[in-house]
Amino acid sequence: MPSDRGHPRVAVDGLVVHADKLVTVRRGHDPFRGMLALPGGFVELGEPVEAAVVREVREETGLETRVVRLVGVFSDPMRDPRGHVVSITYALAETAGVLIAGSDAAEILLIDPEAPPPMAFDHNEIVRRWRRG
Amino acid sequence: MPSDRGHPRVAVDGLVVHADKLVTVRRGHDPFRGMLALPGGFVELGEPVEAAVVREVREETGLETRVVRLVGVFSDPMRDPRGHVVSITYALAETAGVLIAGSDAAEILLIDPEAPPPMAFDHNEIVRRWRRG
Repeated sequence: MPSDRGHPRVAVDGLVVHADKLVTVRRGHDPFRGMLALPGGFVELGEPVEAAVVREVREETGLETRVVRLVGVFSDPMRDPRGHVVSITYALAETAGVLIAGSDAAEILLIDPEAPPPMAFDHNEIVRRWRRG
Repeated sequence: MPSDRGHPRVAVDGLVVHADKLVTVRRGHDPFRGMLALPGGFVELGEPVEAAVVREVREETGLETRVVRLVGVFSDPMRDPRGHVVSITYALAETAGVLIAGSDAAEILLIDPEAPPPMAFDHNEIVRRWRRG
């Protein structure tokens, strides 16, 4: 396989509805520290992307979920100031767990999906795509 | 951004219909040398994934295309013997060009999408997903 350097990274972001609101986390680290974002993160080597998004949602929100559908792939090279990150985005359904902020998330906010505040990265665009179905 | 080593790579594969047949290429290199595959390849740094699949289809088949829809994301860590490669797969529509094998493709074969032969990687699974719409 070609060198692993100088290539896009793969991340996942998850859209989860809890109590009729969209689950977001306030970022505890840069970039976009202090801003709201969808729960998500980098895919690990050897990890299927569907497993990665379920893991990231669990780590950041405490919720157990299952993938419902693929929402889209977001790959604008400028969408992440750290470098080129391709985000694969899924809608998930809650199956268990209790909301509790963890790992990189400073706090959890349940927002109105029809009127989201300004969010980190291109997450407002992701929310719009998700709402279109 | 975390180290770029030890992470999955991002690839694209394209499903293009030409003269009512699915466009495939016979691989000129390992892995799966000599087997049929969908046109595709690795996404380059700074390249949106939709641009990558259009480029790979052009390089391998001579066809100009545009993305019609996202078919799926295929990320089984064992799907590529070279290492963990996440394939983002699109259906494309032909817009121009002439079929001519190029770069990694030894030859082009137009196959019946309803009865594809054994293909490289997990491309038979990708074709099945695409046919389900």
